[in-house]
Amino acid sequence: MLAFYYAPNTCALASHIALEEAGAAYEPRRVDFSSAEQTKPDYLKVNPKARVPALVTDRGVLTENPAILVYVAQTYRSARLAPLEDPFAFAELQAFNSYLCSTVHVAHAHRVRGYRWADEPEALEAMKKKVPQSVGACFELIERQFFRGPWVMGETYTIADPYLFTLASWLEGDGVDPRAYPRVREHRSRMAERPAVKRALAQEAA
Amino acid sequence: MLAFYYAPNTCALASHIALEEAGAAYEPRRVDFSSAEQTKPDYLKVNPKARVPALVTDRGVLTENPAILVYVAQTYRSARLAPLEDPFAFAELQAFNSYLCSTVHVAHAHRVRGYRWADEPEALEAMKKKVPQSVGACFELIERQFFRGPWVMGETYTIADPYLFTLASWLEGDGVDPRAYPRVREHRSRMAERPAVKRALAQEAA
Repeated sequence: MLAFYYAPNTCALASHIALEEAGAAYEPRRVDFSSAEQTKPDYLKVNPKARVPALVTDRGVLTENPAILVYVAQTYRSARLAPLEDPFAFAELQAFNSYLCSTVHVAHAHRVRGYRWADEPEALEAMKKKVPQSVGACFELIERQFFRGPWVMGETYTIADPYLFTLASWLEGDGVDPRAYPRVREHRSRMAERPAVKRALAQEAA
Repeated sequence: MLAFYYAPNTCALASHIALEEAGAAYEPRRVDFSSAEQTKPDYLKVNPKARVPALVTDRGVLTENPAILVYVAQTYRSARLAPLEDPFAFAELQAFNSYLCSTVHVAHAHRVRGYRWADEPEALEAMKKKVPQSVGACFELIERQFFRGPWVMGETYTIADPYLFTLASWLEGDGVDPRAYPRVREHRSRMAERPAVKRALAQEAA
């Protein structure tokens, strides 16, 4: 059986929701960030990057949301979570997820994980200060250009949806007013109604 | 025919090499970063993110290296650039590429593009100062844990190889001594011998 390592309030929620959408059998394993468990030897054996998510399969460990999301879509094909037969549509989906991981999540991370990129307290403050602007600019592009509606890629729900939902849930914490992005905000509400989303969130809150 | 937008000395080289490896017919289109062409209306119509690479296909524009690389592998299957029939192996490849885009490239970007995440000159200096350490830590993990050899994923050349090659070519500029990573360094030399790599580099240098 799969084992899924996650921590609440992290991007792991995206893969967590996808596992629920797929009806996958998996054992959820919470990593305790408050005691920095992700940096301890036991967890580093699972994921030497000291991050979540990590998905343990019978062939080895997979990391990184964009990789795990596609793996779930390809392994549980009947859940139809990605346009696997159409290389162009698949690439559009991948481009969206790649933007989330390399630009949107990174902009957000400067609020509380600035120590990855600078040491001086003043620099960390400067980074924190710019987060509303940099995260806001990302969601501006998503709202006006990339989001098709009602789901990210259009009429069909895909693995881009739990990923956007996860990052969009950080807007208020990042000092960005979600009312500036009505389509993203409606998507958040639409997502929150899905049983798979409710199950993943309940598991993380338990 | 495909049109491929790139700028020299950017991560677009990864997709550029992949197009050459695949034997794709494409028109290379250079974007002039020195005049900030990527921020002008004409280019923003191609890629509103104001970044490279961008691949124009007859169905629309694709962006983001991880997406374009897989698109090339799926479209030119006879080039065998990815384990497309094995979801686990494919996910491992995607995890590697995702790490490159969301962590390695991002660490590097703090040297000259810190303005994305802070405004104060002191903060930009602080970011610049930490780049050798943060980029070095990434390549430490790649060297000791992720790189299999002789190619990134092992015996078979994949789309992870041009991507690693591209980011590893920035080591000296980032103040990281490549001699600390002999396997990555050998990989760089091995890559430089490939005709497809030579063609892409010659095109970008022309």
